[in-house]
Amino acid sequence: METNWVKNAAGRLVPTQVNGEEVIPFQGVGKYRVHGKMHAPTIPSFVDFPKDGNKVVDSLKTALQKAGLKDGMTISTHHHFRDGDLVSNRIFDIAHELGVKDLRWFPSASFPCNSPLIKYLEDGTIHHIEGSLNGPLGRFASEGKMCGTAVLRSHGSRVQAIQDGEVKIDIAVIAAPTCDSFGNANALYGPSACGVLGFAEMDVQYAEKVIMVTDNLVEFPCLPIQLEGNYVDYVVVVDKIGIPEKIVSGTTQITRSPDRLKIAELTARFCLETGILHDRCIIQSGAGSISLAIGVFIHQILKEKNWKAAVSFGGSTKYSVQMLQEGTAEKILEGQLFDTAAIESMRQNPLHHNFSVFNAYNYHSKGNLTSMIDLVTLGATEVDVNFNGNVVSHSDGYLLHGIGGWQNCLHAKNVILPIPLFRDRIPVIVDEVTTLCGPGELIDVIVTERGIAINPLRTDLIEKAKATNLPVKSIYELKEEAERICGKPEKPQFTDKLIGIVKWPDGTVIDAIRQVKPND
Amino acid sequence: METNWVKNAAGRLVPTQVNGEEVIPFQGVGKYRVHGKMHAPTIPSFVDFPKDGNKVVDSLKTALQKAGLKDGMTISTHHHFRDGDLVSNRIFDIAHELGVKDLRWFPSASFPCNSPLIKYLEDGTIHHIEGSLNGPLGRFASEGKMCGTAVLRSHGSRVQAIQDGEVKIDIAVIAAPTCDSFGNANALYGPSACGVLGFAEMDVQYAEKVIMVTDNLVEFPCLPIQLEGNYVDYVVVVDKIGIPEKIVSGTTQITRSPDRLKIAELTARFCLETGILHDRCIIQSGAGSISLAIGVFIHQILKEKNWKAAVSFGGSTKYSVQMLQEGTAEKILEGQLFDTAAIESMRQNPLHHNFSVFNAYNYHSKGNLTSMIDLVTLGATEVDVNFNGNVVSHSDGYLLHGIGGWQNCLHAKNVILPIPLFRDRIPVIVDEVTTLCGPGELIDVIVTERGIAINPLRTDLIEKAKATNLPVKSIYELKEEAERICGKPEKPQFTDKLIGIVKWPDGTVIDAIRQVKPND
Repeated sequence: METNWVKNAAGRLVPTQVNGEEVIPFQGVGKYRVHGKMHAPTIPSFVDFPKDGNKVVDSLKTALQKAGLKDGMTISTHHHFRDGDLVSNRIFDIAHELGVKDLRWFPSASFPCNSPLIKYLEDGTIHHIEGSLNGPLGRFASEGKMCGTAVLRSHGSRVQAIQDGEVKIDIAVIAAPTCDSFGNANALYGPSACGVLGFAEMDVQYAEKVIMVTDNLVEFPCLPIQLEGNYVDYVVVVDKIGIPEKIVSGTTQITRSPDRLKIAELTARFCLETGILHDRCIIQSGAGSISLAIGVFIHQILKEKNWKAAVSFGGSTKYSVQMLQEGTAEKILEGQLFDTAAIESMRQNPLHHNFSVFNAYNYHSKGNLTSMIDLVTLGATEVDVNFNGNVVSHSDGYLLHGIGGWQNCLHAKNVILPIPLFRDRIPVIVDEVTTLCGPGELIDVIVTERGIAINPLRTDLIEKAKATNLPVKSIYELKEEAERICGKPEKPQFTDKLIGIVKWPDGTVIDAIRQVKPND
Repeated sequence: METNWVKNAAGRLVPTQVNGEEVIPFQGVGKYRVHGKMHAPTIPSFVDFPKDGNKVVDSLKTALQKAGLKDGMTISTHHHFRDGDLVSNRIFDIAHELGVKDLRWFPSASFPCNSPLIKYLEDGTIHHIEGSLNGPLGRFASEGKMCGTAVLRSHGSRVQAIQDGEVKIDIAVIAAPTCDSFGNANALYGPSACGVLGFAEMDVQYAEKVIMVTDNLVEFPCLPIQLEGNYVDYVVVVDKIGIPEKIVSGTTQITRSPDRLKIAELTARFCLETGILHDRCIIQSGAGSISLAIGVFIHQILKEKNWKAAVSFGGSTKYSVQMLQEGTAEKILEGQLFDTAAIESMRQNPLHHNFSVFNAYNYHSKGNLTSMIDLVTLGATEVDVNFNGNVVSHSDGYLLHGIGGWQNCLHAKNVILPIPLFRDRIPVIVDEVTTLCGPGELIDVIVTERGIAINPLRTDLIEKAKATNLPVKSIYELKEEAERICGKPEKPQFTDKLIGIVKWPDGTVIDAIRQVKPND
C-alpha cells in the first residue's frame, strides 16, 4: 500500500496510512465528527467458564496459550506500576519462547524498565508498539529501528481507540495488586498496591481475552471491585508483579531550584490575580516537581482566602491528600496515585474517589471532566511562538517522553505551562515545535522564571493581568531573552523515514515523527 | 410473517417469531451456544455536549424531544422504586400528549402503580411491554388485549438482551435519587433513596440516549458514582421521582403463619443436616416472608456453629444487615435493597457492596455469581411432579407475577423451593406447570409444611437426608396429600392466541403463554 502524505489543519505533513491502516488527518480543534458504532467484542457464555468461579491457571504461559496467543495479535497492558512493572516483559519472553511473531504491544505507557523488549522488537517478536515511549524504547524508535510505526496516543485517545474499535485488543494482561479467583480486582491492597486500575478499565471491557496476573490472591469476593471478574478469562498467581519502590516513590519531591520555585510561585499568583482560582474551583494536580510546588502555593492561597476547591483531579500525592484533609479540597477524583499517602487516603477516605480515564478524558463520550477543570498546569519539552506545545520529543529530535493525559488536559478552561526558559542551556521556546502535540489555540499561558506570556487569544486574561504587577511579556520577548543567554540552538535533522505519528484526542493525526538523522 | 410453532427441548410448543423478530427455542440447560458480537451503540462526541458539563434541561418533555422520541422507539426504565415509581408513567403521558405511537416499554419490571399505562396500551401509544408484568398489566395481557406479545425475561436475561443487541434501547429514562448536572448518579442519598441502581447499568451503557430524572440535584461530582455521567445526554429535575414509603417498606415482615414458620425452620434444618450450610458458604437472601424467616434461622445456626457466610447476596433487609453486623456474614453483595436499614448499611459499611445484575446474573458474561452460590431459596406459584417450576402465572392461568432473578438463581449449587402445600385451598404441586419458567433438573428440593421432596437427580442429598429424621417424601406423596385435602383443581383454559413468551437466561424461549379463555 502506498502511503500518501497530506497537510493537516495544523499545517503538518502527515501520512494517510499507518501500519497498513487508514488514518484521518487532524481537522482542527473540535472539527472532526465521528460517525460509526463502538467496538463490539464477541459475546462470551457462562457455559464456558468454571461453575465454581475459579479461573486460576498454573502460569502466565498457560493463560496466554489458552487465550490463543498467535502471530499478529494485539496485547495490551497498563502502566500503573510505572517503572516497577514486572509483568509486561514477561509476556513477550513467553511469546518469544513460543516462537510467536509480529505482535503489537499496546501498553497504556511504556517505561525504561521495558527496554529489555528492544531485543524482541529486533527479532520480530514485537512488530511495533502503540503507546507512549519513554526513554530507551523511544530512542530505538527514533533511530528508525522499529519494524512498524509508533502510534502515540494520549490516555484519553487510547480509551477512545479501544472503544471505537480502532485498536482491537486480542489479549489484555492486567497486573492486579489484589485479585480473587474469579478475576475481581483492586489495587488498594497487596504488596504491589498502586491504588487504582483505571487505565485498564477499557482493556478489560473490550479485549477478547483478559488475563489477570496477581501476587495477592484473596478469597472471593475481592472488595472493592475496581475491575470486574465477569470480564476475566484467566487468573494467574505469580511471586511478584511489581517493584513497590518503583510503583510509588513515597518520596515525591518538591523542586528546590530557586528558579523553578519562582515559576511555581508566579503561576499561583497569576491564577489568583486573574481570577482563575476561586472558591469551588476544579483543579488538576500533578506530581512533577514544579506542579507539586504550585499545589503547595495554591493550598496556601485557598487556606488564606477560606476557599475550597470543589475537586482536585489527581495524579495525587501527599500534597493533594493534605488539601483534602485540611479542607482546601472537598473531593479528590483519582486517575492514578504517586505515593503511599495517596493510596492510604483512597483506602480510608470516601471523598477520595476512583475516577477512570474513561470518565476524565474520553473524547468520544457524552462530555468529560477536562472541559470542566478551571486550571491545569502542564509541562512541555518545547513551546513555539504560536503557543503550540511539544511534550514527546527532545530538542535533539529524539522521542523520549510519554504523552500521558497532556493533550486531554488542554481542553480545560485555563491551561498554563509553567516551564523554565531553558534546560541545560537549551531554550524551551522555539520558532516552531519539533513535534506538534497540542495546538496553540488551547494553550493559554506560559509561565517562566523570567516572565509570563499570555496567548493573544485570551484577551480576557491579558486584560485582567494589566491590573496587576505580574511580569507579563510577549512570547517573542521570552524567546529572545533565552536566546540572548543560550544562543539559538541548532534544529534537529531528520531523514524522510516515518517512525511515528501523534494522535489527537478525537483520533485524527496531528503530527508525524521522522527518524533522527545519524550524526555522521 | 407467519409464526411457526415448534416443540422446544422442554417439550413446550413455542413460536419461532415474536413481535416480528425471530426467536430461538430453548435447547436444554447449558446447550445453546451463542455466536456473535455484542451490541455496538453509536459513538458520541465530546463536541456535542456542554463544556461546563451542565446537561440540565427544563423538563422531561424537553429531554424526550431532544432525545428524538418518535413512533416505534424502545423506552427503558428501572424498577428500583418498585410500587413507588413516579417516573415511568410520566414518560408515556408525554408520549401520548405528543401523539407518539407504537412504543415498546422495556422496564426492568412493572408494578401495579404502572396500571395507568393500560390506557396507552389500549390507544396504541404503547405497542407492548417487554418485562415482568405484575398485577393489572399482567391480567390485561392475559386477557389478550395487548397489541404486541409480552416478552418475560429474568433480570439476567434482560441484561443479556441489552448487551447482545436483542433489544436496542432508543431512550433510557433513569430515575436517579441523587444526581449532578453532568449525570453522575447514585441512589444512596436523597428523599427517594433506593440504595443501588444496578438494574439501570446496562441501559445507561447501551442506550442511544440517556435521560436522568432526579429530585435531588447535587453539585458536581455526585459521589459515589453508581451510574456514570459520561453515558448521560440530559438531566431533568422534578419535584418527586418516587414515593419513599413504597420504595422501601421499612417494615419488611417475617411470616407469622405457623405453617410457613414450619417451612422456614424445616428448610434451615435441611440445609444444616445435609451440609448445604457450612462455614464460608455463599448464600442468597430475599425479602419474601418465608425467606426472611429462613434467614433468621440460618443466622441462628451460623451463630451457634460459629460459622460465617463468606457472602450474603441481596435483596437485603435489616435481617441480612444484622448478619453482617453480628459477623455471621462477612460481606454483602447488593443487587437491591428492601428497607431503610439496608440502605443505611450500604452508606456506612464498606463490606456492604454494590453488585449489579451484570455481575450477578448475566449469562453471557465470563461466568457469574449464580453458580457460586451454595444456597438459594425461591418461591413458585406452581411446581410439578418433575420439579419444573412456574413463577409467573397463577393456577387460574393469569400472568400476575414478575420473573425477577428467579431463573438466574436456579444455577446455584442448591436450589430449594420452600412453599406451602396449598394456597387458598389450591394445591401448589401439580401434574404439569401451567407456564414453564424453570426446568426441573435445576430445582433440587421442595420444602412444604408437610414434608420435603428431593429431586431424584440429587442422589447426594437423598443419601445425606437418610441419616436424618427429616420428613422426606416423594413429590407424588406431597401432591396426593394436598389433593386429599383440597381436591384436584380444575386446569385453566386457554384460547390459541399467543400473549407472551418466557425467555430462558441464555436468550432462548422456554415457554409460550396464551390468552386465558373468558369464563362465559
